[in-house]
Parts: sequence; structure tokens; C-alpha cells
Amino acid sequence: MQVLALGSGAGGGFPQWNCACRNCSALRAGTFRGKPRTQAQLAVCADGNAWFLLGASPDLRAQIEAVPQLQPSKGQLRQSPVTGVLLASAEVDHVLGLLSLRELQPLEVYSTPSIRRILREDNSIFRMLNRVPGQVQWVDIVPGQHFWLQSGSEQSLRCQAVSLVSKFPAYVPEPKLPELAAQEALLGLILDAPPGKRLGYFPAVPEVDENLLNILDSTDLLFFDGTFWSDDELIRVLGQGQTARQMGHIPVSGPYGSLERLASLQRPRKIFLHINNTNPMLDEAGEEYRALRAAGWEIAEDGWQFQL
Amino acid sequence: MQVLALGSGAGGGFPQWNCACRNCSALRAGTFRGKPRTQAQLAVCADGNAWFLLGASPDLRAQIEAVPQLQPSKGQLRQSPVTGVLLASAEVDHVLGLLSLRELQPLEVYSTPSIRRILREDNSIFRMLNRVPGQVQWVDIVPGQHFWLQSGSEQSLRCQAVSLVSKFPAYVPEPKLPELAAQEALLGLILDAPPGKRLGYFPAVPEVDENLLNILDSTDLLFFDGTFWSDDELIRVLGQGQTARQMGHIPVSGPYGSLERLASLQRPRKIFLHINNTNPMLDEAGEEYRALRAAGWEIAEDGWQFQL
Repeated sequence: MQVLALGSGAGGGFPQWNCACRNCSALRAGTFRGKPRTQAQLAVCADGNAWFLLGASPDLRAQIEAVPQLQPSKGQLRQSPVTGVLLASAEVDHVLGLLSLRELQPLEVYSTPSIRRILREDNSIFRMLNRVPGQVQWVDIVPGQHFWLQSGSEQSLRCQAVSLVSKFPAYVPEPKLPELAAQEALLGLILDAPPGKRLGYFPAVPEVDENLLNILDSTDLLFFDGTFWSDDELIRVLGQGQTARQMGHIPVSGPYGSLERLASLQRPRKIFLHINNTNPMLDEAGEEYRALRAAGWEIAEDGWQFQL
Repeated sequence: MQVLALGSGAGGGFPQWNCACRNCSALRAGTFRGKPRTQAQLAVCADGNAWFLLGASPDLRAQIEAVPQLQPSKGQLRQSPVTGVLLASAEVDHVLGLLSLRELQPLEVYSTPSIRRILREDNSIFRMLNRVPGQVQWVDIVPGQHFWLQSGSEQSLRCQAVSLVSKFPAYVPEPKLPELAAQEALLGLILDAPPGKRLGYFPAVPEVDENLLNILDSTDLLFFDGTFWSDDELIRVLGQGQTARQMGHIPVSGPYGSLERLASLQRPRKIFLHINNTNPMLDEAGEEYRALRAAGWEIAEDGWQFQL
């Protein structure tokens, strides 16, 4: 399985348009030891042919144009190696890029029924994906059950969605919530490829219990929520706001943070992704970066490629 | 008035993710004599301080990061020179970038009531713009009547919206249409700056009558719909599809095309923008490009700057 990290930042990317924090200011000034990052986006391929997107970031247009593997190559006038999109939530930074795939291309979108209903029932703009017959096929998935990403009539990648305890996005109106299933709000994604290799994609994780630890330790390559370094990061930087945990993100550092909670993992190569612009670990000259490297972690950069 | 052309392409940009037409293929191969283009986007500023966006393209995040004038500069942690957004339609390639401005920043969005209602009543995702008090203020404008873009309590730019005969976007559900006012679907935008200089922004124009001709000839700098070179361009390239006029765009060439219809204009500097990836005039080695240059027109490129 080929894996492309097309984007590695949290919502808003790095730098963020209206932010002048230490990281964003230094990056714009050219004095930052670290990379700019578009919003989190993975793409995977099992057969060298059909590619699947994990999420659809707002930066998707530029992310596709950055890698030849995702560009038309078969001599047809309208064609794309992008065959399907697998959604882990209905958050803006995870779904908006679907609308950058609106040009009448056949495509499968895999999501829970609740995520599909939020997009299709309450957002007429997503009707752009279903203007003509044979455009987007919406495929329901059930957390906990195996399913296959399909390339035409071929089974391409075997998947499982792990339900994480979380809330629906802030934009979902209160009266809609009783129609939705809480276990369908936020997923971690497990993808299996021959010969027995496993990818884990967990860009947003509110907390880690023993069951989730076991699942994470069954992967070979793990992309994990690196949104915030500390629980009070936004409050410290901005003087106001919510804690990381209130926003549904386990912080990297501190008691019960991901460095501590995932220290026992044996199997996976561990990579943080979905990193907020305020996170001090973006600074490769800083102690936070040194600490996570010493703990055996890496931080994803836009453009990284992996072979599993 | 400063004017920035941040993007100059039509919906999908150039190249388009799923397109392997002659233009897109040559551009990706590095053999094209012409520039890549993000989706159409202008930014204007009268006082060297407060900037207003004309439309909000899906590429807005990268477009803002490309020009220092639009980045935070006042030493506050969260701040932006982007003060407001003026909408000409509810088309995806003209409004999606609003969601790239979702980070709780005070902002005024000027639109007709119909455009506002499509976004706010039928698309819950746009609730991200109104999560906290003092975030986005929606300001109604009336076609034909003058209004001012405001920077705080200061009047910044005097505007007028010109109603163009058109349809609402394809994603608007049929049952919604009776609630909307047809003259509020598509606008041309006129912006006046001292001393008596006038900008015209007309990224989508279905047809040109004598009244519109007079309005266009009152501008000093005119950005005009350059989507398609010929009426049957998409059908010729793809073997199917709609004509330019069926899609609401007067073609550049041919009988009653914009080169012919606007030949009599005396006052403005004339610049095509919103150029589709299939348009042969993107090729600066081609006869179409020579023809429009000979007719006194230019083609906008991403990054062009103007002083009016």
C-alpha cells in the first residue's frame, strides 16, 4: 500500500490566515525552523492504480496538483486516479474538499449515515456532487464492521471504522442531533493491505482507553491527533478559548496526554498529524520537538510518502 | 484604490483536477506557454489598511498567504486586514472560501438577501461563520442602489451592484426558488474610489445589452467574464455538455461574443478573468491569445496588482 501525506495541519493550516502567534509570525518572516502545512489529508493506494482519499480537506485542489500520482494519466479527457473518499467526521476541515471534486466525476464517498445526512440533508451545496447520474455514490459504513473500498467491481482495500466518543461538528443545528447516532460522529480508520500490513488514521482523538490502545498497537503505520501540545494551549496563546480536551483532542504532553498514553505501543511507526498552528512542537528548534522525537514519534510533513 | 487579482481561473482552476484536455496536459507536462491559475478572486483597498474581498474562492487560504498585504500586521494575536467580503453570486467557486474565514474573526459579508438565504437557511455548514457574537455580520445589498463597504464606523468604498439576468446555482433546490428574487441571483460589482476612479468586476455575464455597455464604459479598470472562448467550447473538447450561453457565460469570440460586443468601450482597461481550463486563449503561443491582445484586451494572471 502506498500512503501519501498531502497535508498535515489542523483546521486553518499553518500559517492560519488571521493568526499572528509566535509560530505563524516567525514562519511568515522566514525565521521559523519548521515547515508550512496545509490541512490534514491522506491518500492511499493498494494496486498502483486506484487512489482513495482519507477525508477531503479544504486544500484538496492544490494537494492533488502537488503529486503526479493523483493526476489524470490515462489519455481520457476527463479522468482521475481518485476513486473514492473515506470520511472520518463531518468537520469542515475534513469534508469541504468534497466540493473541489464537483466536476461530474464518478466517485464513491464512504461515511456513516449520520455524516452523510448532515452533508446531504442540511447542506444543499453538496447537491453539486449529485447533479448527473453516475456522479457520487454515497456508501454507508457501520463502525466496528469490516468493509471494502471498491475500485469498480474490484475490492481494493479492507477497512474498519473505529467509533470514538465525540460530538458532531459545532455547525450541526441542535434540532438535528436527535436524528443522528452519537457513535457515528467521529471515527478512526483502519486500512489493511496485503501482505498483512495495517494503516491507522486517527486525526482527531478525544481520549484513549485500553481497547483503543490495542487497536492502535495492531497498526504498522499510525497517524495520530497532534492538534495541541498542551491542554491549555489555546488559552495560553490567545488569553481565551477552550481546552484541547473540550475541543475533542487529547493533548500531546502532560498527564494522560498521547505521549504518555501511547508510550507502550510496540508495533507502529508513530506520526503526529493534524497539528494546530499554535502547537510549539512545530518548531524543530524547540524542546517540545526534541521531546517527541526522543519518545519515538515523528511529525508528518506535507508531501511525505510511505510504502507499507 | 489598490486592486489585487489573487486568482483568475474559472471553477476548478487551471489545471483542473480531473481534466486532461490539451491545456491541462501541456501545463502539467511543463510544455505550456501560459500560467496556472487559481479560482477567480479579487481584493481591493481604498485606505491602505482595510481590504475587501470580491467573492471568496475555494483557493482563498493559499491566495491570502501569497500576498503580505492580506496578512496580520498589527501585533495582535488574532487579526486580519480582511475586513469584508462582497458577493456577486452564490456559485460554489465564489462563496466556498467564506469557510476558510471561519476562525472567529469579525467580518462583514455583503450580499443580496437571496444569496444570504441560500447560504444561511439551506446550508448549516455556514453556521461556522456565526458561532460567537461579533463574528460575521451579514449585510443586505439592493441591486441598483448605492451602498458603502464599511471599515468599522468609517465608510471605505462606495459600491453599486448591477443585476444581471441569470439563474441561481444548480445546487439550489427547486422548491427554494419561489422564495428567491431572480434579480438577486447574479451581480456585476462597481466600486468607486477617490479621485473619481471606478473598478468594474463582472466575472460571470450571460449577455450584454446597451444599458450594461454604458455601465461598463463608466469604469476605468474592468474585469470581465473570460470563461469560454467559443459558445460550443465544452462540447468540442468533451464531446458533450452545455454551450457557454446555456451555462450563463457570453463567449469571448464569435457573433455577439464579448470581443465584438465590447469593442466600442472607450474608457476602461479591459481584462478577462474567470477563465476556464479548456479556453484556448490561455495558450500565449496561440492565435486566440494574439487576437484578444490585438483587440486591446489582457488576461488576468494570479498575483497581478493595480493602482487606481
